[in-house]
Amino acid sequence: MLVVMNASADEAQIANVVKSIEAKGFEARVSKGELKIVISAIGSKLTDKRDFELLPGVTEVIQLTTNYKLTTRAFKSEDTIVEVNGVKFGGKHAGLIAGPCAVESYEQVDETVKELLKYNVKVIRGGAFKPRTSPYAFQGIGEEGLKILRSVADNYGLAVATEIIDISQIDMFMKYVDIFQVGARNMQNFNLLKELGTIHKPVILKRGLSSTYEEWLQSAEYIMAGGNGQIILCERGIRTFETYTRNTLDLAAIPVIKKLSHLPVIVDPSHGTGLRDKVEPMSRAAIAAGCDGLIIEVHYNPDCALCDGAQSLYPEQYGQLYQEIKQIAPIVGKEII
Amino acid sequence: MLVVMNASADEAQIANVVKSIEAKGFEARVSKGELKIVISAIGSKLTDKRDFELLPGVTEVIQLTTNYKLTTRAFKSEDTIVEVNGVKFGGKHAGLIAGPCAVESYEQVDETVKELLKYNVKVIRGGAFKPRTSPYAFQGIGEEGLKILRSVADNYGLAVATEIIDISQIDMFMKYVDIFQVGARNMQNFNLLKELGTIHKPVILKRGLSSTYEEWLQSAEYIMAGGNGQIILCERGIRTFETYTRNTLDLAAIPVIKKLSHLPVIVDPSHGTGLRDKVEPMSRAAIAAGCDGLIIEVHYNPDCALCDGAQSLYPEQYGQLYQEIKQIAPIVGKEII
Amino acid sequence: MLVVMNASADEAQIANVVKSIEAKGFEARVSKGELKIVISAIGSKLTDKRDFELLPGVTEVIQLTTNYKLTTRAFKSEDTIVEVNGVKFGGKHAGLIAGPCAVESYEQVDETVKELLKYNVKVIRGGAFKPRTSPYAFQGIGEEGLKILRSVADNYGLAVATEIIDISQIDMFMKYVDIFQVGARNMQNFNLLKELGTIHKPVILKRGLSSTYEEWLQSAEYIMAGGNGQIILCERGIRTFETYTRNTLDLAAIPVIKKLSHLPVIVDPSHGTGLRDKVEPMSRAAIAAGCDGLIIEVHYNPDCALCDGAQSLYPEQYGQLYQEIKQIAPIVGKEII
Amino acid sequence: MLVVMNASADEAQIANVVKSIEAKGFEARVSKGELKIVISAIGSKLTDKRDFELLPGVTEVIQLTTNYKLTTRAFKSEDTIVEVNGVKFGGKHAGLIAGPCAVESYEQVDETVKELLKYNVKVIRGGAFKPRTSPYAFQGIGEEGLKILRSVADNYGLAVATEIIDISQIDMFMKYVDIFQVGARNMQNFNLLKELGTIHKPVILKRGLSSTYEEWLQSAEYIMAGGNGQIILCERGIRTFETYTRNTLDLAAIPVIKKLSHLPVIVDPSHGTGLRDKVEPMSRAAIAAGCDGLIIEVHYNPDCALCDGAQSLYPEQYGQLYQEIKQIAPIVGKEII
Repeated sequence: MLVVMNASADEAQIANVVKSIEAKGFEARVSKGELKIVISAIGSKLTDKRDFELLPGVTEVIQLTTNYKLTTRAFKSEDTIVEVNGVKFGGKHAGLIAGPCAVESYEQVDETVKELLKYNVKVIRGGAFKPRTSPYAFQGIGEEGLKILRSVADNYGLAVATEIIDISQIDMFMKYVDIFQVGARNMQNFNLLKELGTIHKPVILKRGLSSTYEEWLQSAEYIMAGGNGQIILCERGIRTFETYTRNTLDLAAIPVIKKLSHLPVIVDPSHGTGLRDKVEPMSRAAIAAGCDGLIIEVHYNPDCALCDGAQSLYPEQYGQLYQEIKQIAPIVGKEII
Repeated sequence: MLVVMNASADEAQIANVVKSIEAKGFEARVSKGELKIVISAIGSKLTDKRDFELLPGVTEVIQLTTNYKLTTRAFKSEDTIVEVNGVKFGGKHAGLIAGPCAVESYEQVDETVKELLKYNVKVIRGGAFKPRTSPYAFQGIGEEGLKILRSVADNYGLAVATEIIDISQIDMFMKYVDIFQVGARNMQNFNLLKELGTIHKPVILKRGLSSTYEEWLQSAEYIMAGGNGQIILCERGIRTFETYTRNTLDLAAIPVIKKLSHLPVIVDPSHGTGLRDKVEPMSRAAIAAGCDGLIIEVHYNPDCALCDGAQSLYPEQYGQLYQEIKQIAPIVGKEII
Repeated sequence: MLVVMNASADEAQIANVVKSIEAKGFEARVSKGELKIVISAIGSKLTDKRDFELLPGVTEVIQLTTNYKLTTRAFKSEDTIVEVNGVKFGGKHAGLIAGPCAVESYEQVDETVKELLKYNVKVIRGGAFKPRTSPYAFQGIGEEGLKILRSVADNYGLAVATEIIDISQIDMFMKYVDIFQVGARNMQNFNLLKELGTIHKPVILKRGLSSTYEEWLQSAEYIMAGGNGQIILCERGIRTFETYTRNTLDLAAIPVIKKLSHLPVIVDPSHGTGLRDKVEPMSRAAIAAGCDGLIIEVHYNPDCALCDGAQSLYPEQYGQLYQEIKQIAPIVGKEII
Repeated sequence: MLVVMNASADEAQIANVVKSIEAKGFEARVSKGELKIVISAIGSKLTDKRDFELLPGVTEVIQLTTNYKLTTRAFKSEDTIVEVNGVKFGGKHAGLIAGPCAVESYEQVDETVKELLKYNVKVIRGGAFKPRTSPYAFQGIGEEGLKILRSVADNYGLAVATEIIDISQIDMFMKYVDIFQVGARNMQNFNLLKELGTIHKPVILKRGLSSTYEEWLQSAEYIMAGGNGQIILCERGIRTFETYTRNTLDLAAIPVIKKLSHLPVIVDPSHGTGLRDKVEPMSRAAIAAGCDGLIIEVHYNPDCALCDGAQSLYPEQYGQLYQEIKQIAPIVGKEII
């Protein structure tokens, strides 16, 4: 931590800062410049920089110790690759996950999956428990939905990714699910994250609507600190003043996170834009930016979907997109199977 | 719902929209103007407006049915007043809650409360379970903290408000706590909200960092739909591009919410600004804007606080503030006891 | 400037950073800690910190020199008080400015002003040149509007504040106007600011819709660097994700700016909320937060206003508000005449 | 315009709304539904919807008339293609503009351009007048810079794009410049836009930092209403809570604007990210999303650049990027020369 003071600070003020730094268990080193005095607090403890900002004469306090460690490139320089059912996320691989927004019925999942099989999909998605803004909106069909996903997946040799919304569901999910998905609203549900740190299955951690890159990595740190390193980060749009699209998909997150962390980063263009005709261009853009995969909503009959039909692709649109991104991927050094 | 089309839309496009509206169970009425054709979908069902936005010729779709009902002024025109230990929130009353950010020890709570008693505090606050961005930060002392709060409160005849962070804690909290607080990060933890709808104690529902007024009211609707109408909304700052303050305290929320809803609205200037010397002016401003109460962090020794000391008031600062807001309240038709 | 490196940085990397710092004309001092190496660049030059962020081994670069000087408390510790026609902004004084959004006609200004005289208004406002989002919206009546403002003001012994939108208008404005107002959209029209630095009349500088406190002060610095120290900063709301109100009025700006700078800060609750019934509570809140004045839209007949009638107060509402804020001001150590 | 009232509104309230609508020159048509009453205001006048929002019984007012016309697809369905020096922006073409952030000297421009010629650059960029946040930062070398750009461009048969920051510069710019660039800070400098509507040269209109898509199109409307249809829209990042990157590049703007408007949309990844190593991935992403061109900062020696060197590419990086986007473009139906 660095405590910056005006050059005009007097000796009593400097001594007071030094005392406060030492009281928190750090060693203090004073360095005087032309315009500023910088006092370094040497040590590795966590502290609240605002405690020092309020001291007389202090103009700024700068925290140097990041609050995430295991998720950083400094901790592990090579890319983490998460593999599920032969699909790889990370390194030179971009993995694909597709399926309906919500599980509605066996037939709906089966019909949709039959279409997706034409395009080599190996991991399917679908929500059984839906966190909805309104208490009067469709909330998902629950455990029945998990059973349907598992059953269809087993029929065709596929893996299942689905969203968990409460810590009490972990045991149930272990029976049916291959990849646990933590939604944007739960990105800072720390108790849930801690528990997911103890399981041995991959976790997709979506970015919160108003979460910074650093907060996102700190949430991943909760999982990793528990021993589970199979984490896939998922950019799905942030909230801004622009309301034309459902969210603002922040594709710069891809190169930024891949520089800071060894974890794979995928993109959800369906929630990121909220409109079907924006899903294709943003999927291509995400691949061109170097992401490690996509999770895309596809429905065999979007016009009748119970949830988010408007952002779900028709199967043939997915097929067209699949052809396009397979061509773009090698240009940026990636492979899509 | 209103589906707006360009005046240039042809009959086939109009017929298609009408068919789609009817397929969702609405009655359709077409009204043609100079520049626009407006098709009203009559009925009270919930639907996803984006399903219609993608139809050819459609320029805009407008949802008229609000997704919250019980929380609106239309449902209940008179102010809801929540009363706890003689302190009233709502109507002509502004209630005060004060105490440390986190419970650290019996002595810390006791010392702080002894100071607060000088200023007529009847409801104390303090966190036993702390949701922290970093897994390496102080996470609270757990149930022990609830016991301390209860014990100190009972000694002095006070009520206790504290934050619940997981659905599994409800039974435990029922033993110790008078007001359940739902933090900003849990504003859309819908399972938790549903459960809190079944208890018979007041709930403070903080606004999420990036939540709109409407989403906030919909979350309150989850609680109220379960049968619990004792809800206190709490503005605590939203996330914006400005980073000098911890959050941007949105005081316009007070008159806006009080027009839309009958529920009381209080303000948390401590989290809303994150810095002690901004808590006083923003508390006064909140009262002048007509809020129904304040929840303020006070610590008998903020310099040694384990959590958020920088935003905690010294007891005598609280006393000064108490005098000021007691004078401002009657000017805006409010009473502070 | 401080360049922070990982403790794992090797000697070649450190030497490279030192060389780069020296190449930009600074002196470099290396300080090694447990987790980080901090290299201070001593000197007062401005530089682009990103030039150092990209060097191998560097994790962060921190700029210490603020880019504004004359506007800081460090440069001038006592409050600047701007006085116009006996009305003071700053120090222990909160000044009031009121009038219609746009000048429509002599009669409209005269009728409105006659109402305002009942409440001791000494400075009137009104736009003659209106920056409008749409080219098809009412753009103001131009110089004719300035003449009307001057004429009415002279009749009653008042001062005039109005918005300038282009550098070419300065000479014309000098003939009619007592306070130049720079709108939010022009906060970074640097050529205009430079010119306003050379005049001898007060300037109201509104905060840009997405401007940080620091950018705002830097814009004021442009004016002050030219020799004109009569600057009144005006908070008028920022753009956020919340769209219910026209803007999000950021009242924390008041205590923040008053700590950083000696310049007075006033508030425009009319643009800050965009709705008449929110203007009163937010005006009271602004005064309670310690602002140095208000600029409020009032129209003798808002229902027929050509521009922003919906956010204009009726004269009697202004009268009511005037009584309330006169009572609140002394509680926070301020005087309103 | 549609005025929505609660079904519980009484006849007097309805009559009052009808009267108000008619007073503004519209025809009113009342349509009663189960939950809401919708009153359509038929007519093509512009009005302020807030005037109706405040009437008793009204819950919402919806404006249907867009404030931009000439820039819409409804006005002109085929793509506008802007061509400069053989480079096309729009339709099946993606055009490229490259050059240094600021003009520093003849040698600097010449050296940089010589490098760019290797990659078929036909339009160069470079700032002579720089709008800078701080009055103490480098402000550009002025007209001398324009002369340098013109001279180097003529030597090699190139076209010049550069930023105009004040209306008084138009005549001077006409002598030297092929494409006028309006920066983000001037997107709502309406007097400047009006004047640019009267010239016969293309204008690049950058999106403001906090401007919605609709405001951006309305600013383009100012230019087009004056008779100049050669407009190139440029997405360059918006301001959000995320501060790691300089701005948040909103690539969804590409498909959104291309649906709403016939005007070409290009992307500035240099300002959009602010860091060199993010420029490449975001450039590829922009092309993959279907943009009509890129404007990229390249400097022959970025380490010594006077302005924004950190976001400028090395020439060989540009060459590498050029190869990549030439491969991506045809996959999305675009051609890069």
